Amino acid sequence: MSGKESPTAGSGGSQISPLAPRGGFPALPVIGGVRLATARAGVRYSGRDDVMLAELAPGTVIAGAFTRSATRAAPVLDCESKIGHPALGGAAILVNSGNANAFTGSYGSASVRALTGAVADLLSIDPARVFTSSTGVIGEPLPHDRILAVLDRLKAALAPDRAEDAARAIMTTDTFPKGAGTQLDLGGGTIRIAGIAKGSGMIAPDMATMLVYIFTDARIDQPVLQHMVSTSTRTTFNCITVDSDTSTSDTLLVAATGTADAPRIERADSPAGRAFHGALHEVMLDLAHQVVRDGEGASKFVEIRVSGAASEEDARKVAMSVANSPLVKTAIAGEDPNWGRIVMAVGKSGAVADRDRLSIRLGDILVAEKGWVAASYTEEDGAAYMKRQELVIGIDLGLGEGRAVVWTCDLTHRYIEINADYRS
Amino acid sequence: MSGKESPTAGSGGSQISPLAPRGGFPALPVIGGVRLATARAGVRYSGRDDVMLAELAPGTVIAGAFTRSATRAAPVLDCESKIGHPALGGAAILVNSGNANAFTGSYGSASVRALTGAVADLLSIDPARVFTSSTGVIGEPLPHDRILAVLDRLKAALAPDRAEDAARAIMTTDTFPKGAGTQLDLGGGTIRIAGIAKGSGMIAPDMATMLVYIFTDARIDQPVLQHMVSTSTRTTFNCITVDSDTSTSDTLLVAATGTADAPRIERADSPAGRAFHGALHEVMLDLAHQVVRDGEGASKFVEIRVSGAASEEDARKVAMSVANSPLVKTAIAGEDPNWGRIVMAVGKSGAVADRDRLSIRLGDILVAEKGWVAASYTEEDGAAYMKRQELVIGIDLGLGEGRAVVWTCDLTHRYIEINADYRS
Repeated sequence: MSGKESPTAGSGGSQISPLAPRGGFPALPVIGGVRLATARAGVRYSGRDDVMLAELAPGTVIAGAFTRSATRAAPVLDCESKIGHPALGGAAILVNSGNANAFTGSYGSASVRALTGAVADLLSIDPARVFTSSTGVIGEPLPHDRILAVLDRLKAALAPDRAEDAARAIMTTDTFPKGAGTQLDLGGGTIRIAGIAKGSGMIAPDMATMLVYIFTDARIDQPVLQHMVSTSTRTTFNCITVDSDTSTSDTLLVAATGTADAPRIERADSPAGRAFHGALHEVMLDLAHQVVRDGEGASKFVEIRVSGAASEEDARKVAMSVANSPLVKTAIAGEDPNWGRIVMAVGKSGAVADRDRLSIRLGDILVAEKGWVAASYTEEDGAAYMKRQELVIGIDLGLGEGRAVVWTCDLTHRYIEINADYRS
Repeated sequence: MSGKESPTAGSGGSQISPLAPRGGFPALPVIGGVRLATARAGVRYSGRDDVMLAELAPGTVIAGAFTRSATRAAPVLDCESKIGHPALGGAAILVNSGNANAFTGSYGSASVRALTGAVADLLSIDPARVFTSSTGVIGEPLPHDRILAVLDRLKAALAPDRAEDAARAIMTTDTFPKGAGTQLDLGGGTIRIAGIAKGSGMIAPDMATMLVYIFTDARIDQPVLQHMVSTSTRTTFNCITVDSDTSTSDTLLVAATGTADAPRIERADSPAGRAFHGALHEVMLDLAHQVVRDGEGASKFVEIRVSGAASEEDARKVAMSVANSPLVKTAIAGEDPNWGRIVMAVGKSGAVADRDRLSIRLGDILVAEKGWVAASYTEEDGAAYMKRQELVIGIDLGLGEGRAVVWTCDLTHRYIEINADYRS
């Protein structure tokens, strides 16, 4: 029993985070060729659905992005091996919460084979087209028999309009279900995109893995979709951080069913390709921001904007160094305009920096420049700004053209409570 | 006013950390050629000494190591430029707490010049032989006039046996003064080493910079001493971490006065050189451990031992990834044997790792091997072990000969309190 969970975990949204989107779960477009179902398998939680199944129409192409951890969980290794498999026949995605099937030795891959084989039989599709994810405790064998026992029930419940139920079934320490969608008109027809996500630490290995599933009816070639997913991951999901930790199970799958009556997208740089990529990026960014807003213990949503770096890579180093600094994050939690800690985090980032060219802003307020506090800055202005729930920290290095934007949250007592105080 | 301090900061040790060395400040050998004094300058604190002066005999050689931050404070830049200056005449070290003189623009270097010039006049030595450090709030001009005003008093108070007073005068959020010393007999005479340190976060830029001053009466050439200091820094002060943050002011100075009646050490690899280097390393390691034990909010002292890595560099990456992981550190605070989080931290480290060759130990308890929990492991054994105040986490990657050991502490509510709750 190496895992643990908050007593409110999976309570179905009764405790809404102050950073949850207003208005609750959004109305998402229904995607042709996608049917969803959820069920209670009792993997770990009781009294709530903990398994979701997505059935995808024949011809669906699937792209993905996965954790780069060297200790990736069995389902992740299986998914990675299947991306790019020819889109022959239908496909499916099966996800459970409560157990991550990570660091479970050879039993872990046996569980994956049992589940993918059974879903393939259930839906009469190729096992190489069945993707699974697991999120929850790590190091315990997945009781996959409990999931096998509800497969018939899942199949019977498949319906087009079940995105919110699916988003809830995959939650662990999340305090609200996460969804985002859009539609765009291309000359000749409409394309719809709908996604769900879970993840609240970034990303705890036992209860807060980030899982993202995005569905679209676009007609698109797999390599083109994969290119869009990979490039947009870099500026969305790879630009968020809650606590700098990385899950063994992070998974993003994007499935395009091709049922839209819009023209086929054959290139990323065509007008239709660019429009679709823009819409996909917007949905990915929306979901990524929701994951940060639900960061464990988060009370502030923080955007770190870096400009003037010697390179893009340096800009990212600086942004991530600030976003992951415990001293910066506790200062934000304390509503303390402690810009000295930002200077510290820039200094330790490993990026080229010149103290005397650096400038720092809190929103529009110029705080520091030319190696010292700005003449116009007052502690009162800074303190008033820090009381906001959404903050923008601007850092200009004054050296070059490198830019980066990342998003994070603060580090609060609640984070310690969730991760230290409660034992399973 | 960008800084902040705990209400107990600098209360002179009345609140002793549970991880403080038993028996209080150690009896340190008196070093010939070194005289110390402290005084109350009122830089920021009241009711306590906040400045210390060390006067060093003519011919003293000085070696050092400094923060690699790109936003180094003015005193650090000044010290770096003076290391290796010919050992003509006497030397001095002046340190103040309460203000870091960091990110203070051109005023910062003016303060350093004012202080080093005045100390040079006071002691009739070359300004290039006067080293200063400042620790405390950042971004505020150092009121160096208050320090200038007590220089005469400092000179009058200089005495050989003032190490504990000096260790107290440089404290900020530290809860106990830190000192370590030893002596060794070389054929022909005795060499003494005595050091003091401060630092409690690793290393907050405003209040918890790490400062270390080590004095010895060894007769040794500066390049030989510098070599020993640089190599031992890699395995002592660069192997500790409290919160992954790096100060703009971290400074280590080692001064050898040459007053011992032992033979001159001309090479690091001679028998005398090896013996002295070993003793110096021991003092450095002792002080480094004391800094971790006094980590902000620390309730556990944790050693991370990595073996079997593909390279030394990989071993260090893994050790630091585990030592800096907020999820590992909160699990330790919660006395939770959550080895899944250790697997996670190994996976994200960037080092070559193979899940199925990895093994993890808590002390002597084998917890996980071959990609899964060990057959002999029980949660009860793990939970009992985690209740200890001193923990050893062993990680073998099963790949090669790379080894590393680092030391850290846990992440507790008290860390958040110190860094978020109290405003200046």
